[in-house]
Amino acid sequence: MARRAYREITSAANPLLKVFRHVLAEGVTREGWVAVEGPFALEEALAASASHRGVTVESVLVGAKAAEKHHVLLDRLPRDAEVAVVPDHVFARVAATPSPQGIAALIEIETRDLDRVLGGPVPHGTGRGPNPLLLIACGLQDPGNLGTMMRSALALGASALVTLKETVSPFNPKATRASAGAIFHLPILAGLEAASLFDKLRAAGVRTVAADRDSPQSLADADLTGPLALLIGREATGLPTEIMERADLRLSIPIRPGMDSVNAATAASIFLYEAARQRKFEELTH
Amino acid sequence: MARRAYREITSAANPLLKVFRHVLAEGVTREGWVAVEGPFALEEALAASASHRGVTVESVLVGAKAAEKHHVLLDRLPRDAEVAVVPDHVFARVAATPSPQGIAALIEIETRDLDRVLGGPVPHGTGRGPNPLLLIACGLQDPGNLGTMMRSALALGASALVTLKETVSPFNPKATRASAGAIFHLPILAGLEAASLFDKLRAAGVRTVAADRDSPQSLADADLTGPLALLIGREATGLPTEIMERADLRLSIPIRPGMDSVNAATAASIFLYEAARQRKFEELTH
Repeated sequence: MARRAYREITSAANPLLKVFRHVLAEGVTREGWVAVEGPFALEEALAASASHRGVTVESVLVGAKAAEKHHVLLDRLPRDAEVAVVPDHVFARVAATPSPQGIAALIEIETRDLDRVLGGPVPHGTGRGPNPLLLIACGLQDPGNLGTMMRSALALGASALVTLKETVSPFNPKATRASAGAIFHLPILAGLEAASLFDKLRAAGVRTVAADRDSPQSLADADLTGPLALLIGREATGLPTEIMERADLRLSIPIRPGMDSVNAATAASIFLYEAARQRKFEELTH
Repeated sequence: MARRAYREITSAANPLLKVFRHVLAEGVTREGWVAVEGPFALEEALAASASHRGVTVESVLVGAKAAEKHHVLLDRLPRDAEVAVVPDHVFARVAATPSPQGIAALIEIETRDLDRVLGGPVPHGTGRGPNPLLLIACGLQDPGNLGTMMRSALALGASALVTLKETVSPFNPKATRASAGAIFHLPILAGLEAASLFDKLRAAGVRTVAADRDSPQSLADADLTGPLALLIGREATGLPTEIMERADLRLSIPIRPGMDSVNAATAASIFLYEAARQRKFEELTH
C-alpha cells in the first residue's frame, strides 16, 4: 500500500501551528476538542475512534523524524484526518512537553445529550432498564483532579461525567492526560446549568446525592442503588449552598476527627466505589 | 514581649541558603526532613509540633518583608528554632515556587519503629487491643500519588504508612505538599526491606493483602477486619511478583472490563475505605 500523502508545513507562522500551540499549552479552542501528544495517546484516540462514533481524529501534526518512525501508525489514520509534517525544531516549539515525542493530534469528542444518557436504551441482552449513575462535578478548578475523576468514573461503572458551569473543562489538556484515556470512552456533558439539570434529573427519577463533609449521615449507611447522581464540589469550599439545598441526600465519608477532607478525586472515587458495591458491580458487566 | 532575635543573612553564598534551595527544589537532604513553603504550611507544622513529640521545626528562612508581615507567627516558634532573615530577592532565588510567599522552614519528622506501630499501647479508654491497618507502598515513583495516599491513610484511619526500598521518599517536597499536612500526623516508616517486614508482620499476626488487578477475588468479598497491611504497587506495573507471592490475600477492585486500572492513590483509598467500612469506622474515633 502506498504511504499516504502528508501536508508539509515549513513556516512557523502557519495558522495550524498556532492552533496546536494554543491547544497544547492553554487548553481547548472550544468544548469538545482535545489535543494529545505522543504516539501512545494517539493510538488510544484511534482505538476509541474505531469503537465510538463520537470520537474523531481531526488533525495530526508530526515532526519529520517522528513521521518516519511512526509511519505505520500514521497510515492507520482515517482518510479524512489531515496529517501535517513540520521540521523537528518547529515541532519542538509547538509542543507543550519538555521532551516532545514529535507527534500531536487534535481530536473531536462528541458531547452527549442528557436525555439520552438518562433514558438510554436497555443494555443488550440484560432485560433490565437503565440504572444511571452520574458523576457531577460542581465548580472544581484542578484539571488533574477532574481527569482522575473521569478515570475512576469510567472504571467504576459511571454512566457519564457532567460538569456544571464554572467548573474546569474536562477537555483541558491536563484533565485529558490525567483521565488516562477515559476522556475518549466516558460520555461527557460539559458546562451544564444547575437549575435545568436538577429539573431533568428529578423528572427522570434520578436521586441526587451531595458529598457533604459536614453531614452526619455516612455514605455507607445510605441506599445508593437505583438511578443516582453524585455531586462533588471544590476541594477547598465543598459544594455551593444552593446545590446542597437542592440535593435529595447529603452524605459524608467518615474520616478521622480534625481532618479537613480527602482529595476531591479520592472522595468521588470512594462514593462511586460504594455505589458500585451496593449495586453488586452490575454496571461493570455491560 | 520583646520580639525574638533573627539571624541576618546577606550573602547568597551562605550554606544555609544552599540547604534550603536544595531541599525545596530537589527533595530531602536525608530521610525524616521536610521543607515547607508558605505561612499556612508552617502553621500546620507548628500545630503538629505542639501535639506530637516527633515533629520539630528546626530552621525557618524568611524574606525581609515576610518577617515583618508574619512576626506573630514567627514569635510563636519554639525558642530553639533558628530564624534567618534574608533580603527578598535572595529569598526569591531560594524558593521553589514561582510566586514565593517569603517564608520556608525545615522540619524534622521522627520516623517510627515498626514494633511500636504494630504493638502500640491500647488506645486510651477504649479497653480494646490495637488493630493495626497499615498502608505499604511498594515501588511507587510518583510523589504526588504517595502524598495523596498519606492524606487518605490519615483520614481513613490507617495506623501508619510504610514504604519499601526503591519507593519515592514520603519526605519528597511534592509528596509532602500532596499530603496536605498528613505527613506531620501519620506515622511514617520509610525505606524498609521487604523480607524482614513480612517476617515481622507475620509474627505480629498482621495479614497482608496485595492489591492485584488480575485477582478474581474482589476486596468487597474479603474479610478486612483484624490486623491488616495493604500492599499497593506502582501504577504501571503493579506489585512485584515476589511481593505478590508473599501476601496472604490478593484482591482486586472490580472495574469495567478492558480498563487498565484506577490511579494508584485512588486504589489505595478505595482499599482503605473498604477496610474502614468493614471495621465500622472504629479506628476513626480514637
